[in-house]
Amino acid sequence: MSGEQKTWTGKAIVARDTLANKGWKIEDVTTREIKDDELLVELVASGVCHTDVMCGTGTGNPDLFYYPRVLGHEGSGYVKAVGSKVKVAKPGDAVLLSFDWCGECESCKNGLPSLCYESMPLNFGNKPAFESTNPEDPTVIAGKFFGQSSFSRYSVAKQNSVVNVTDLVESKEELQAFAPLGCGFQTGAGTVINVAKATEKDAIAILGLGGVGLSAIMAAKLSGCRTIIGIDRVGSRMETAKSLGATHVLDTSKLPTGLTVVQAVQNICEGAGPSITIDTTGAPVLVMAGIEMTRKGGKIIQVGSTPPEFQVELPAFLFMNSGKAYMGAIEGNSTSSEFIPKMIQWYREGKFPFDRFVKLMPAEDFERGIQEMHTGETVKPVITWT
Amino acid sequence: MSGEQKTWTGKAIVARDTLANKGWKIEDVTTREIKDDELLVELVASGVCHTDVMCGTGTGNPDLFYYPRVLGHEGSGYVKAVGSKVKVAKPGDAVLLSFDWCGECESCKNGLPSLCYESMPLNFGNKPAFESTNPEDPTVIAGKFFGQSSFSRYSVAKQNSVVNVTDLVESKEELQAFAPLGCGFQTGAGTVINVAKATEKDAIAILGLGGVGLSAIMAAKLSGCRTIIGIDRVGSRMETAKSLGATHVLDTSKLPTGLTVVQAVQNICEGAGPSITIDTTGAPVLVMAGIEMTRKGGKIIQVGSTPPEFQVELPAFLFMNSGKAYMGAIEGNSTSSEFIPKMIQWYREGKFPFDRFVKLMPAEDFERGIQEMHTGETVKPVITWT
Repeated sequence: MSGEQKTWTGKAIVARDTLANKGWKIEDVTTREIKDDELLVELVASGVCHTDVMCGTGTGNPDLFYYPRVLGHEGSGYVKAVGSKVKVAKPGDAVLLSFDWCGECESCKNGLPSLCYESMPLNFGNKPAFESTNPEDPTVIAGKFFGQSSFSRYSVAKQNSVVNVTDLVESKEELQAFAPLGCGFQTGAGTVINVAKATEKDAIAILGLGGVGLSAIMAAKLSGCRTIIGIDRVGSRMETAKSLGATHVLDTSKLPTGLTVVQAVQNICEGAGPSITIDTTGAPVLVMAGIEMTRKGGKIIQVGSTPPEFQVELPAFLFMNSGKAYMGAIEGNSTSSEFIPKMIQWYREGKFPFDRFVKLMPAEDFERGIQEMHTGETVKPVITWT
Repeated sequence: MSGEQKTWTGKAIVARDTLANKGWKIEDVTTREIKDDELLVELVASGVCHTDVMCGTGTGNPDLFYYPRVLGHEGSGYVKAVGSKVKVAKPGDAVLLSFDWCGECESCKNGLPSLCYESMPLNFGNKPAFESTNPEDPTVIAGKFFGQSSFSRYSVAKQNSVVNVTDLVESKEELQAFAPLGCGFQTGAGTVINVAKATEKDAIAILGLGGVGLSAIMAAKLSGCRTIIGIDRVGSRMETAKSLGATHVLDTSKLPTGLTVVQAVQNICEGAGPSITIDTTGAPVLVMAGIEMTRKGGKIIQVGSTPPEFQVELPAFLFMNSGKAYMGAIEGNSTSSEFIPKMIQWYREGKFPFDRFVKLMPAEDFERGIQEMHTGETVKPVITWT
């Protein structure tokens, strides 16, 4: 690459301390030179997700929580430069950014890259990728969060995190709206389609109607599920869920006195409960309610991150007799390079209208986006880079 | 049925107190008159299973533990009389006895009779079926354990528990050897085939090599699993497991110092572990080891009855990230009237040679059978009625 540009300077959201301490700031950073298996991407948009907030809020475990760093794990943009071993894209290509995987472990070799045995260090570990342009602060800033750190106008991305969508995207505006496909939407839709393998015989309950939950609702509708129940405590999401395919919605803030969410859901499902329950909330009380409400022989799929110390306690003998399955899933067990094009195709066919709950805003407004995500005013904030 | 015989008198194993208190005795009992949906069966053999021992040993919960009663839930015999609504068989037919189910609940209607919502009262509840011929003891004796109470020469069986094998069985001796097909063998084989849906891509570990575990080994071989690991602490079972299809066996009583069963199994499976683990032991330490040894994205299926108070504790966040599934199964999610004929067909083809670990003995020797089952000297004792 002699003679070519080797580093790029632009705005980024740098987490120099926790979000709670107001440690996230927009500042200028310079990318380091890319390696053989990396690309330099100019981001046009980044989805904001609870996992960013979680990783930029915690303290303690230095494998997960460290500063300064650039977060962001749902990105879209155009390639500016590629390393010598990169085959996925060339400069100028439009790309979406997704999670990282090693490609060599037993999970990766068997078509389950989201369960990569190197997943934790690859997606969460501390890896230098930027230098500060602010002489008063430490020079090196960690990047490659999920192999990408998309909260930056320019970022270093690992090849395995990159999905080439040059032939699938019609405009820069569309590319911006597609930013969350690489994680949240893939997680919701993939869980229904790849993990639960839902069919028209299934009654499905979705706990939590954020971006993941609403994507699950759309995928349940795509799968023809006979009953689709959306559950949340934010009233405004009920209509959205219905418009996307929910046959029933439950606003847990308005349950009649004496009726539990378990009973309410089972009442909808022949008294027996759903055959598939997906928890996108990670709230312990809802996780346990999800396990209880599911019908005998049904599946409960954990998708939302619970508090790290939370233990699911299953009475082994009774659980065995229920024939239920409690299972985990990451990224909907998707292979991003296969699943993202599918979602784009469904979008074109009008079957996956995620644009109804995406809200674009300038990167400078990221704090507002996070705030609106927490209150429920916005389902999926996507910040844009200009 | 006027003019026909309405009650039958013969030997039975009556549990008048717990097994530990030596409360199980052979004595003469008289069956009550059958109802419209019942059959009177003359048993030729009964499989002995740990569940009989468990239910005839416990005290406390009166829904599970009560005396006097006749246990036994794996039986074979010939029909002597049928109620007016019985369609499954006619007098003279050869039948196998299996579990009971209601036929009307959401599980039964959806092809999962083993997960029947009435399963506990139907299979374990206190229902009179015999009268004592001993004037010194209480007159009424409970029966219809699993709809059948096969520890009796003559017994009252519910239609739903009966599978007609008249056209599938060649002799009385064969019918005797087939007695355990209705529960233990169906549970082991059904768990591999119906629940795990094992294929040639799977590496499978079977914890415990009793009748259920060895049936699972045979079914794994039938399914073409690439690696089949049999695990037990009774050395004599290693050769049996190998002869039935295990590619590897682990005698946990002889593990090298410093090597755990988890490590030993993972070492066999590319360092990652099996994709399917079936626990037939119910031993808490093995249940937890089974969950740990399983590879990311794999299934752990609980088949062995754990102590009633045992809680499986899963660290929710880490478990989610593992993509594993912990699931229960009963009777291998089989529909007995469909699965028993399949097992008989496999037996005829030499693919399900369960006769290698069945040991017939007279009913009077039941205590020896139980003792040998506990020591491991006999895998599957089957008592015969003459």
